[in-house]
Amino acid sequence: MANRRASRYLPGGFDRSAVATALAALLGEVRPRPRPGHGRALDLPGGYAGLLRLGRETLAVTTDTVGTKVLLAESLDRWEEVGEDIVAVNVNDLAAVGARPAGLVDTILCTAPDPERFRRIGRGLARGLRRADSWLLGGETAVVPDLVRGIDLGATAIGFFPGGRRPVTGARIRAGDVVIGVPSTGVHANGFTLVRRLLRENSVDLARPRPGGRGPVGVELLRPTRIYSGLADAVADLPGLHGFAHVSGGGLRNFVRIAPRWSVELDRWPAVPSLFAWLQSLGPLSEREMFESFNMGIGFAVLAAPAAVPSVRRALARVGAPDAVEVGHVERGSGVHLARSGLDFEGYA
Amino acid sequence: MANRRASRYLPGGFDRSAVATALAALLGEVRPRPRPGHGRALDLPGGYAGLLRLGRETLAVTTDTVGTKVLLAESLDRWEEVGEDIVAVNVNDLAAVGARPAGLVDTILCTAPDPERFRRIGRGLARGLRRADSWLLGGETAVVPDLVRGIDLGATAIGFFPGGRRPVTGARIRAGDVVIGVPSTGVHANGFTLVRRLLRENSVDLARPRPGGRGPVGVELLRPTRIYSGLADAVADLPGLHGFAHVSGGGLRNFVRIAPRWSVELDRWPAVPSLFAWLQSLGPLSEREMFESFNMGIGFAVLAAPAAVPSVRRALARVGAPDAVEVGHVERGSGVHLARSGLDFEGYA
Repeated sequence: MANRRASRYLPGGFDRSAVATALAALLGEVRPRPRPGHGRALDLPGGYAGLLRLGRETLAVTTDTVGTKVLLAESLDRWEEVGEDIVAVNVNDLAAVGARPAGLVDTILCTAPDPERFRRIGRGLARGLRRADSWLLGGETAVVPDLVRGIDLGATAIGFFPGGRRPVTGARIRAGDVVIGVPSTGVHANGFTLVRRLLRENSVDLARPRPGGRGPVGVELLRPTRIYSGLADAVADLPGLHGFAHVSGGGLRNFVRIAPRWSVELDRWPAVPSLFAWLQSLGPLSEREMFESFNMGIGFAVLAAPAAVPSVRRALARVGAPDAVEVGHVERGSGVHLARSGLDFEGYA
Repeated sequence: MANRRASRYLPGGFDRSAVATALAALLGEVRPRPRPGHGRALDLPGGYAGLLRLGRETLAVTTDTVGTKVLLAESLDRWEEVGEDIVAVNVNDLAAVGARPAGLVDTILCTAPDPERFRRIGRGLARGLRRADSWLLGGETAVVPDLVRGIDLGATAIGFFPGGRRPVTGARIRAGDVVIGVPSTGVHANGFTLVRRLLRENSVDLARPRPGGRGPVGVELLRPTRIYSGLADAVADLPGLHGFAHVSGGGLRNFVRIAPRWSVELDRWPAVPSLFAWLQSLGPLSEREMFESFNMGIGFAVLAAPAAVPSVRRALARVGAPDAVEVGHVERGSGVHLARSGLDFEGYA
């Protein structure tokens, strides 16, 4: 199931297994039943998106919310960034299966219909849609002060596979493949339950720069999630393209999702941006906690055969990702291994 | 925009125009930009669903939540009904444009991953999916106690138009058409901000039957929304089929949505179920307030040429709606007119 993942850090003392247990209880009741004359749900390794076959078209569907990042937006009364994130968190999951975004429906749950706030969310949403080359098909706005605190921002995105492209599942990954990482713009929209706890426990002043940072740290943390759908679309049809990883909630464990039968050796992971080092110092958190909670500088990755690397990098550079870097390679074995820190991640769920 | 509608009764003293203003502020920033090589958003009168053209397929997309009905579910600790509503509120909007449900993604926001509650939601969801002949493509589960109170249940449904069917928009409606209503199972999942206010102000005991009612009134109010997608699918291709109305939030004003250039004369609206009369007495509310807040006994309507009525009724009876009744007809003019109560509704938004 798309997006059915849980962070290591959950509020209220819950852990991933509590969420997994609850979800298993729900999904245990819901069995898929393929029927003739209807759409057909396809099984998709990795689970970034649900796939649906309709006539000659295959669709990918993702659904996700901005999560508790909106609470930071609220404390700063800044809304464009999270408006843009509504698009980003969804189209990046489409990107991970090689789908081109076709359109999006948003859901806004709020305590009050504040026009100025809505206008700024709309402005960010529009920027996200432009960056994702997509648009809004509809949405739902509910004023439900008894149900939400503040505001909840979510969406469902629908993608398609142009020109007979097959979904990118990681099934073609093999030993020797190169892992090309594309930098993130910051923490994106994951791990904010943890981030907010760190900010609170350390009484961090959001209006001031962090040590070594530029501008208010609140604004730095809010920076919109980088949108990777255009670059995934630009390389998805290249020969030798074997897989994509969206490094979202779960950090490096996302590589286990797409290459469960291989060992992903991240032996060239670049220097981690100082924002993450600062967050780590606030805990203090271990390297493991950091790498399984955050993207640590690389928000998306392309896995390709060695011979394909030059063409992949040229294509990435052409569509706005000249900053892509080789971060590792694939070997026989299992798990994700971060050489520099001696960290191994074996599971994803 | 699909589902961008507001009830007359909003919490916190907001009215429809406040929501309309906020939404206009958001949508003013987001302009659709059709692009070659991408999906194409189609304009759809009525706005029950967003339409998307992809290759040879046309898709319909709806997104909606169960709203504050979950708060009644919570006070009774009953979850199957609202689990089923997750499906119903979405596929009924697909039905209103003549789309067959292809699949659904759910979003659950909760304060805690309670396995028993999730299991019961899953059981209801599964029942709704069976009734809608659809299934789950994925979903998102977020444990966000800082963002929600209790639990929020929503979904996005994707529908398609089998065999080259064209979306049902109401464009073929003409004077003389007959309005065939299909009964509701109760208040469905609309108007619960108002229902809950009435229950609270009158200190209604949810565990006891209302005067003239059977079983606990809390259970009666929770009764799952009737699913109309199968019957809409069964009649959508019949010659003389001109329009559908999903009588959801906004009550009879939904007829203005699909027939804005005609007068819909509801001169044979059946006796209103006693549940609604009882709710009205709790206010007391006016007839107008009731008919623009609730479905008042008819949750879905089929508009068809007089010659088509027998075949429509036969088809409805075959797929589980032998209880369909003629409730009115179409004339030249505008607005919705409820003869019995002398009520006129001119606008929808």
